[in-house]
Amino acid sequence: MSSVAVFEELRAFVRERDWAQFHTTENLAKSIAIEAAELLECFQWNADGDPADIRDELADVLTYCLLLADKLGVDPYEIVLSKLAKTRQKYPVERAKGRSTKYDAL
Amino acid sequence: MSSVAVFEELRAFVRERDWAQFHTTENLAKSIAIEAAELLECFQWNADGDPADIRDELADVLTYCLLLADKLGVDPYEIVLSKLAKTRQKYPVERAKGRSTKYDAL
Amino acid sequence: MSSVAVFEELRAFVRERDWAQFHTTENLAKSIAIEAAELLECFQWNADGDPADIRDELADVLTYCLLLADKLGVDPYEIVLSKLAKTRQKYPVERAKGRSTKYDAL
Amino acid sequence: MSSVAVFEELRAFVRERDWAQFHTTENLAKSIAIEAAELLECFQWNADGDPADIRDELADVLTYCLLLADKLGVDPYEIVLSKLAKTRQKYPVERAKGRSTKYDAL
Repeated sequence: MSSVAVFEELRAFVRERDWAQFHTTENLAKSIAIEAAELLECFQWNADGDPADIRDELADVLTYCLLLADKLGVDPYEIVLSKLAKTRQKYPVERAKGRSTKYDAL
Repeated sequence: MSSVAVFEELRAFVRERDWAQFHTTENLAKSIAIEAAELLECFQWNADGDPADIRDELADVLTYCLLLADKLGVDPYEIVLSKLAKTRQKYPVERAKGRSTKYDAL
Repeated sequence: MSSVAVFEELRAFVRERDWAQFHTTENLAKSIAIEAAELLECFQWNADGDPADIRDELADVLTYCLLLADKLGVDPYEIVLSKLAKTRQKYPVERAKGRSTKYDAL
Repeated sequence: MSSVAVFEELRAFVRERDWAQFHTTENLAKSIAIEAAELLECFQWNADGDPADIRDELADVLTYCLLLADKLGVDPYEIVLSKLAKTRQKYPVERAKGRSTKYDAL
């Protein structure tokens, strides 16, 4: 599935409800943080959450991420791959292999 | 672009660094929340953030979302559309139109 | 130490820098979420963080919490105890003992 | 009110419910981030939240902060003042006055 089809669905959903007025970049960023915390809540007291709950909460985080991507005029997968190229340089295999150390302490 | 291509790139990146050991669902959920807050930081003191910074931070949130989606064996766009169907029912057009009220107070 | 002394120190710090203009309740709420994620980062890849880092990041979360409490005109410890009274009722000992279940599923 | 009195109340509340087993530093850090997002939710779609809701959500963030402080064996107000001394040096009045710029860009 391409981002075009998903964007079309999301735009129709928003348009029908006249919600574009609420979707400033700032409000979308707040919403992503709020939904990310609901996803984290699946793991609040244990390392394993319920798979159906995790999937649902992940979908909410992704939904706001896509709304923000659409507003910025970017393709979600393209910015991921573009950022990955930078991250490859920050974490060279020979230094980062098998270690969770942050790049500035590698 | 399909999720298959992005997943392949992300898997190669992780495999080369032997990082799968760190990517438990819980750690990925924590990472999504951490990156979501870095995105929010673009708007900490004002309503408008720098577009290049926003795109970069959004890419980081999305990257961990995709890693978690891959771990759950789900397609990112598919779970967004599937959740959207539920949200349409929680927020019927006739009641939700033009209002940012939460569904349980509509 | 009472909240009066801490509030006085924080107010002087803010006044000297002319920062009250940035401290809307919304911006303080964003700041608390941002600092909470930095605290969480101490535990991103493992269950044990560095104690000195944890203390420093906790101090940052608390600082913004106190700035918000001062703005709301409330005493931090008093609202904690006042909320605790409500929580005692939501989680009666006989049902909540030894369980991390959320109140609406108890 | 001193932290001693609040700590005593919180400890009794936790002890009665046998909840200390859930309160690892990591779980408390996750809980702080989760509650911080609920506070942020008061401002999801607008700059002004309901004062009673804000106070309640702030109390929840503070409660987990105090539980973590007690676990670390530190006084909440003392670590705030101790961190403030460092922050004064990172943000000298003559450079930071009236500006929300981050210290590394001042």
